[in-house]
Amino acid sequence: MSTAVSSPLYAAIDLGSNSFHMLVVRHIDGSVQTMAKIKRKVRLANGLDKNNQLSQEAMQRGWDCLNLFSERLQDIPAENIRIVGTAALRSATNVDVFLRQANQILGHNIEIISGQEEAATIYKGVAHTSGGLGRRLVVDIGGASTELIIGKEFKTQALISLSMGCVTWLDHYFHDRQLTQHNFDNAINAAKATLQPILAKYTQLGWDVCVGASGTVQALQEIMLAQGMDEVITLPKLKRLQKQAMAASHLEELDIEGLTLERALVFPSGLSILIAIFESLKIESMTLAGGALREGLVYEMISEMRHSDIRQRTIDSVQKRYQVDIHYANQVAKTALQLLAQCQPNQAHAAQRQDPLLWISEAQAPFLLQSAAELHEIGLSIDFKKGGEHGAYLIQHLDLPGFTRAQKHLLAEWIRRYREQLTSLPEQHALSNQSSKRLLRILRLAVLLTHRRDVDLQPLVTLSANGDAMTLSISQAWLEVNPLTYAELELEANRQTDIGWPLIIDLI
Amino acid sequence: MSTAVSSPLYAAIDLGSNSFHMLVVRHIDGSVQTMAKIKRKVRLANGLDKNNQLSQEAMQRGWDCLNLFSERLQDIPAENIRIVGTAALRSATNVDVFLRQANQILGHNIEIISGQEEAATIYKGVAHTSGGLGRRLVVDIGGASTELIIGKEFKTQALISLSMGCVTWLDHYFHDRQLTQHNFDNAINAAKATLQPILAKYTQLGWDVCVGASGTVQALQEIMLAQGMDEVITLPKLKRLQKQAMAASHLEELDIEGLTLERALVFPSGLSILIAIFESLKIESMTLAGGALREGLVYEMISEMRHSDIRQRTIDSVQKRYQVDIHYANQVAKTALQLLAQCQPNQAHAAQRQDPLLWISEAQAPFLLQSAAELHEIGLSIDFKKGGEHGAYLIQHLDLPGFTRAQKHLLAEWIRRYREQLTSLPEQHALSNQSSKRLLRILRLAVLLTHRRDVDLQPLVTLSANGDAMTLSISQAWLEVNPLTYAELELEANRQTDIGWPLIIDLI
Repeated sequence: MSTAVSSPLYAAIDLGSNSFHMLVVRHIDGSVQTMAKIKRKVRLANGLDKNNQLSQEAMQRGWDCLNLFSERLQDIPAENIRIVGTAALRSATNVDVFLRQANQILGHNIEIISGQEEAATIYKGVAHTSGGLGRRLVVDIGGASTELIIGKEFKTQALISLSMGCVTWLDHYFHDRQLTQHNFDNAINAAKATLQPILAKYTQLGWDVCVGASGTVQALQEIMLAQGMDEVITLPKLKRLQKQAMAASHLEELDIEGLTLERALVFPSGLSILIAIFESLKIESMTLAGGALREGLVYEMISEMRHSDIRQRTIDSVQKRYQVDIHYANQVAKTALQLLAQCQPNQAHAAQRQDPLLWISEAQAPFLLQSAAELHEIGLSIDFKKGGEHGAYLIQHLDLPGFTRAQKHLLAEWIRRYREQLTSLPEQHALSNQSSKRLLRILRLAVLLTHRRDVDLQPLVTLSANGDAMTLSISQAWLEVNPLTYAELELEANRQTDIGWPLIIDLI
Repeated sequence: MSTAVSSPLYAAIDLGSNSFHMLVVRHIDGSVQTMAKIKRKVRLANGLDKNNQLSQEAMQRGWDCLNLFSERLQDIPAENIRIVGTAALRSATNVDVFLRQANQILGHNIEIISGQEEAATIYKGVAHTSGGLGRRLVVDIGGASTELIIGKEFKTQALISLSMGCVTWLDHYFHDRQLTQHNFDNAINAAKATLQPILAKYTQLGWDVCVGASGTVQALQEIMLAQGMDEVITLPKLKRLQKQAMAASHLEELDIEGLTLERALVFPSGLSILIAIFESLKIESMTLAGGALREGLVYEMISEMRHSDIRQRTIDSVQKRYQVDIHYANQVAKTALQLLAQCQPNQAHAAQRQDPLLWISEAQAPFLLQSAAELHEIGLSIDFKKGGEHGAYLIQHLDLPGFTRAQKHLLAEWIRRYREQLTSLPEQHALSNQSSKRLLRILRLAVLLTHRRDVDLQPLVTLSANGDAMTLSISQAWLEVNPLTYAELELEANRQTDIGWPLIIDLI
């Protein structure tokens, strides 16, 4: 049964303090597919006066935007729509005036959600779109509030919404639009003061990974990538960006490579808050989340998506959508993991520990190898010719909830090379380059040894490794009755050896 | 239901006079997906002596190759396998010796097919993989035979297999390996003499399009593309290649950009035969077929694929595989065709005739516009962001039976630009550049006017064109209650006008 014809649409609208966003998706074959994204910079928080009255102009900007959204909303079942207002609307004393007209325009009621609810929903959005083991700290810097959540899998353990955001901090600390040390210091110190009450609790709980959501973090990551840095956000990089910003004395003259015009205005204030968070919580590194509030709203509506293993859900969905021969994919994965285990017999004892003495030391290596094996043939859905290239293109561009950008990049580079010509791998940041190379070699052998797609017809082999020198022991009698495999194995030994990765076929 | 898990494999093996080929496919979601291609240059025809005895060495090369194929064949149900031998085996007087051992190696019987059967199967392979209206002439130059077929849709009207091929012509006319005028003249004249008996019948039947199959034509097209020419093969281009070949006096020194080593040996002989065919039959132009003998064998086995409208079958399958919202795609197609009809009200009278006075004169334009509309959202299956780019990538690389390379290219360029930023179109060869531009403008308007995905919510519009100046008349009252469409239409008028394609929104 094809669910393609009229799978229902869902909409999530987020009336944020800086922008209003509308996300329209459909739920198809176990994945959430974006059908439309509409965004308008309403800057509601900017229209709050000192008595927290929303100005008429700000409300009008909001209503105009909702008027646009409402056209699209009419075509979506009411039960598939969620519209939430956040910090600016929470604090507006005249919110009723805004809501009366807004609800009428939309034909649906806006929920003003509490900071706690907002934080919980953001966490859901992150948990549904980001994988990773262990406890995670989620940071979302909005226009008028910042959420900090600690959780594991789908459960939150601490959550808070703080009254600071990139629009309000702009108004308070960069009101004169000067990018001076003085303004930055004030902004950072004020953010630290705001964070003070939660430090003890959050530091005590601790976390394994830190994930940033929202436009501020996204803008930072885009700047870093544009400037040739890797995707991981660290304090030294943030400090470097602060220096770059201060080179322009005035906000209107800000010219940082990779910074888009629409983010420029709230960039120094958002940066200040993020620096304060890094320093106060002693964060070592942060990566960008795949989703946040709007995604949380969507995943809450789609009940079938409440699934615990994001990465497995992602692989299942991609295999299905690209008609992968799943039996075979599993066979390749199993073979690859066996070959890996043969190369490092002590792995079992090392368990999750990262032991640098192991042949492959990274704990996530087996899962990445398995993922590559499970997805390696997706490019065949486009064309057999250059199947590896097509697979790499898909992996690079698909939204793969649960995989980081660096992991996607590595999977793509492996899959590009799963068969035929072998070229050396580019630099990447998911594993050490040595491990990446070794796992690719294993992936290629696993593909080759299983090419008959029948688990009963697979040869018994033993792979052993001495550093980068690998030896595959295989029965000569078996090879003689499987001459195609024999020819391919010899070719593969030459290919690996030719690029400096010695591989010997040992006939037994 | 997903058919991905264990859709059955099919294999077609073709023991050609130059190479042996094995094609393994599976039938999935209405399309044939290639799972493996194995090819060995056996050069059987080269092993025939003057008494048409196959030499022991040639037979051994054949058996060695079949030994490789047989490994893979064991995993495929017997009823899904077809193995055929062609010209070299047809003419070998000691074919029984070869077959006895070959059948044993394969565990399956080889059918030696007649030239007539070969021609009929090639035609099926072409008809299943190439679209196009009208009567087609199919030319397939093999190692020891050349098939010429005239047919329409799935029916052949004339077919012949001639005893000339690129291996036999190499042995006869380029035996000294000299690329001289003398050798070329002899080769071409001999081919013309071979063609002589069929000229009257074929010329009288006539054809609308000419399609070339097999390695010779493919190699020629690759050379042309590598040298920056377009894909259409014409006599002047063939003559130019002959000159390039003659610049190397000796076959071993042949160095033509785009010519692969493995085709080089039979390139001058194949080229001579093709020149003779062009001159004798006065062929104006030829394009490459999407498939031939092996594809014919495969499509004969997969009975569900016996479908009359290849292009519609292709579109249906692609829509299904990439989870296109089909209701919406149909709505966009209908709207686009309506807008096109409004711009050229006399189209109905002109019917299939190519009338240069029409706003869009090419007969295939409506179908191409409709195809683009039906496929424009396929890129969303990869990601919403850059959905047009992803769609273009897919169209460019997917095997789309029924569409020529030039048509795929045009569809990709349209789909790349179906929404958002508009850039001018690159040169292409499927339609005039003027028509291509006009149809893209219509496609964009159709997408925009239907964005609510509900046929009842679509505005009544009238599109009129005066050359490249277009005016869209639309109700102001309707726009006022659909402000998002209004905003998007104004933006679109600016985008089209800004790149020199004037578009006026006329409120009525």
